[in-house]
Formats: sequence, structure tokens, C-alpha cells
Amino acid sequence: MTDDDFRLTIVGVGLLGGSVAKAIRRGHPHVHVRGVSRRPSTLERALDAGVIDQGFEHLADACVDSDVVVIATPVDRLAGYVIQAANHSPAECLITDVGSTKAGIVDDVGDDANAAAKFVAAHPIAGSEKTGVENATDDLFDGKVIILTPTAANRPAVREKADQFWRATGGRCLEMTPEEHDDRLAAISHVPHLMSSLVAKLTDPESLPLAGSGWRDITRVAAGDPEMWTAICQQNRSAVLDQLRRCADELKVLHQWIETRDDAELCRWLADAQAVRWRSDESDAGG
Amino acid sequence: MTDDDFRLTIVGVGLLGGSVAKAIRRGHPHVHVRGVSRRPSTLERALDAGVIDQGFEHLADACVDSDVVVIATPVDRLAGYVIQAANHSPAECLITDVGSTKAGIVDDVGDDANAAAKFVAAHPIAGSEKTGVENATDDLFDGKVIILTPTAANRPAVREKADQFWRATGGRCLEMTPEEHDDRLAAISHVPHLMSSLVAKLTDPESLPLAGSGWRDITRVAAGDPEMWTAICQQNRSAVLDQLRRCADELKVLHQWIETRDDAELCRWLADAQAVRWRSDESDAGG
Repeated sequence: MTDDDFRLTIVGVGLLGGSVAKAIRRGHPHVHVRGVSRRPSTLERALDAGVIDQGFEHLADACVDSDVVVIATPVDRLAGYVIQAANHSPAECLITDVGSTKAGIVDDVGDDANAAAKFVAAHPIAGSEKTGVENATDDLFDGKVIILTPTAANRPAVREKADQFWRATGGRCLEMTPEEHDDRLAAISHVPHLMSSLVAKLTDPESLPLAGSGWRDITRVAAGDPEMWTAICQQNRSAVLDQLRRCADELKVLHQWIETRDDAELCRWLADAQAVRWRSDESDAGG
Repeated sequence: MTDDDFRLTIVGVGLLGGSVAKAIRRGHPHVHVRGVSRRPSTLERALDAGVIDQGFEHLADACVDSDVVVIATPVDRLAGYVIQAANHSPAECLITDVGSTKAGIVDDVGDDANAAAKFVAAHPIAGSEKTGVENATDDLFDGKVIILTPTAANRPAVREKADQFWRATGGRCLEMTPEEHDDRLAAISHVPHLMSSLVAKLTDPESLPLAGSGWRDITRVAAGDPEMWTAICQQNRSAVLDQLRRCADELKVLHQWIETRDDAELCRWLADAQAVRWRSDESDAGG
């Protein structure tokens, strides 16, 4: 990766894929970036934006002699592309991704020994409500956590390369198992997203002029792509269902306290929530 | 209110009460602002910040010869202060508030004919996660909706004065009944707040380093004062409980779709939520 002719292939050249390319180019000005998309218009926009050096409609053509391949597609199509990329890339190639779910993908890739050796799954905790390669930035990952979920099947050199590569984007790498990733993310991202959508869904449009900054903050992520979030929920079904059950149980208790005028319990519960929120501000300051 | 010696009394000199004073002073530089607080230190800070001209520990002393009294205390103590202010102010005095609930307060005040004549309840849809008079700003209400819930008991001149007064803060007045206010606010503010707290409450603190901007946005209001929000839930109990039941019903359906892999329904539901959120951006642009 210190080579002048370092070759990076990005499959799915949107906000995340484009930002990976720009972040890497910042520290590696001679990197050669190839973009893969089924849509010629996407490749043209990526070329125009200076994000990629060369566009490909076929993944196989773009992966030949690549050093790193990043799959930045919706999670339900990810494993298939990883296996294809593994079939058409050199033995020492690193294949990684930016998907929001991990266990199902790592499992599916695990059925193919060659792909399993090359694939180190990654989830950068970074994003934007904006989409498209035009909104890609070279600092999207600066200081952000990148979760890596390496497995025993990984070639050691590839695992080391994954760590180097993601640090080169500006992120901070954190390792865990795919299962731990999915459990934690269901609770801190996937189900919170559903709660945000729930609040928006239950809002009478006629009340919108009365929406304050609280409603706007809570529902911001509800603007996210429905297909992308459907795929995330389905890929992480069991952890999402567990967490939805916890929400339902908590709602029941909350309802009871308000119904029975148990102000003391309600206030304690709100204070517990406040404490978690405050703690998150501290962990920001520390990061 | 065009008089040089217009006298304004603010009961509860925090972020909201202080911002009302500063907003009014912008257009009425000769206004005389009196602050009421049981805590001398609060009055000193308000005097130091130039928000009030004179501090009072007793509401009665501050209301004598006042033109307008604004009660900016927690909602569970509001009606009592309105009645006290009515007892000690001139007949043509306007008494108004900034409380997040309306029906219970208007009802309680309604038992006192003198207070009912003078009190036009108001809810400015404006706020900040910051608190305290130091964070008060003169533009907090600019372009924001101020919900007024006048009643048949109001003296007509007082009702007209309420409209003038709140427009003078920079806000846009919108009238509805106290009951409609409470129903709409339960759905667009009070229960969304509880959902934000729910997301924070169910977060394992060890997962906080994995929190992205989505979690942060959703949980921002969970940092709000637990006592204040307990009082809001209790003051608006019945509408809050109705809305919590709707949340529970919706969660059940959502759980079922994910469990039975009904991607089409899940995606449609997410798209409905997205549409509401988009519509809110349009109503912002229009406002």
C-alpha cells in the first residue's frame, strides 16, 4: 500500500464507496482507483468528480491485479460480490466492505474458502443523510470507529492489510466478532432507526407545522432509503427482533407508570435515559 | 404595548422566560422587565445578563401595575402562578405562559373567573437543549409557531393583546383549542420525547463508542430535564397514553413483518415514514 501503483477497486460508487476512495487518495496520491457500477451514468459522475480514475461495468475486469477491493453495495447483495471479487483477484488481494450488518455476510462468504481467506468485513460508523458520489468527502472517516470482524479463515497478511487500509482512511479500527457486531448494532443503530421511522409514521401530516427541533432530530434518519433499511433488518433479523421485544416490554412498563401516576418511577426512568445520553457526550469528548 | 413605560413581568427566568424578555426588548427598547424567582442567585444572573431590570422574590410585588405577565415555570406549577398573578395585577393585564401542555392548565385556571379573563395560554414551539438565562437569545422565537389557546372566558382586549405580544417576539401565532393542542403535541412532541428516552435507556453504555450520528440525533432530547418531562406526561396523561398505545400497536405489526420476512410491507412502512419526514422538510421551506 506504499507502492506508487497501489490499485483500489470500489464496487458501488456512492457516498460511502466514493468517500473511501477520496480518503485513501489523500494519503496515497498515486493510488489508481477503479469504480464498478452497472450504471454507466454513475461511473461518469464518479469520473467527473475525480473520485475514480477508470470505470468498469463488470466486476471481474476491475478486480484483476487489484490490491484492495471495497464492496460498497446494499447488504443483501454484498456476499455475492465478495465471492465474485475473490474469484477474479490476486491471492494477496484484500476484499473488504462497508456494510451495516456482518454475521450473515461473513457466513455466506465462509462457504467459499478462497473468498473467506481474502475477506475482512468492515463497518465504518460514518455516514450522512446525503447520498451519491457527488457528496463523497475525503474526511468522512476521520476519527470514526471502523469495526472489523476478521475470522480464523483470513490469510494473516490480508488481516494486517485490512487494519492498515482502514487506518489510512482516517478511521480508528476496533475488532469484534460478526455476531457481537450485529447484536450491538441492532441496539444502537438498526432499532433506533425503526423508532425514528415509527415517530415519523405516527405523525399526522397536518401537525407538521407544530414540529419542533426535537421531532426533527428524532426523525432525521427516517429519511433514509427504505430498501437499504429493509435489507439491513432482514440481514440482522434475529438481533433486531430481540431488541424490538425489549422496546415493547419497556413501552408497557412506561405506559403503566403514566397510567397509575407513578411519577417517581417515570422520573427515575427518564433520568436513567438522560444519564446514558450524557455518558455518550463524554465518550465523544474522549474520542 | 407601544407605551414607553410598557411593564413586563417574567415568572421563572430561565432560557425561555429570558428569551421572551430579550425578544420583546429588541422591538421595545424602553420596556421595563421584572423577573420573579424564589432563588436570589437566578435573579442576580438575570440582572447581570441584562435580561431583567429588576428582580423580585414575590410574584405579587412584581405583578402590581404590570401590562403583561409571562409564566415560564414547569407545567405542574403553572396554573397556581397564573391565578396568583391575576389576583395582583390590573384588570387589563395579559397573563400568558410558555408551557408545553394546555388543557389541564386552562381547566385549572378556568375555576377562577378573574384569572380566566386575563389568561391566554401560549406554547411557543421553540427551545434549546441548553438551559438557564445565560443562554437566552433575542431571536429564539423568530419565525417559530406560537400556539395560542384562547377561551370564551378571555376579555376580548386581552385576547388581542396576546396576539400582539407574541407576534412582537418574532413568532407566528396559530390558534387552536387546548384539547387539540394537547392531542397534537402528544403525537409530535411528548411521545417522540419518550421514544428518544427509550432508545437511550435501552443502550448498553459499552456500545456508546459505536454510536453514529443517527443515534446521537435520535437521543438528543433525552438529555432533557426528567422532572420537567415527568410533569408534561402527567399534565397530558390521556393523550400521551393514547399515543403510546398506537406506538405499541405499530411495533407489534413491525415485529411481525420482520419475523415473517415480509420485506414488501416493511419497505412500504419505511417509505411511508420517509414521506412524512420529507413533507416536514417542505413545510420548513414554506415556513
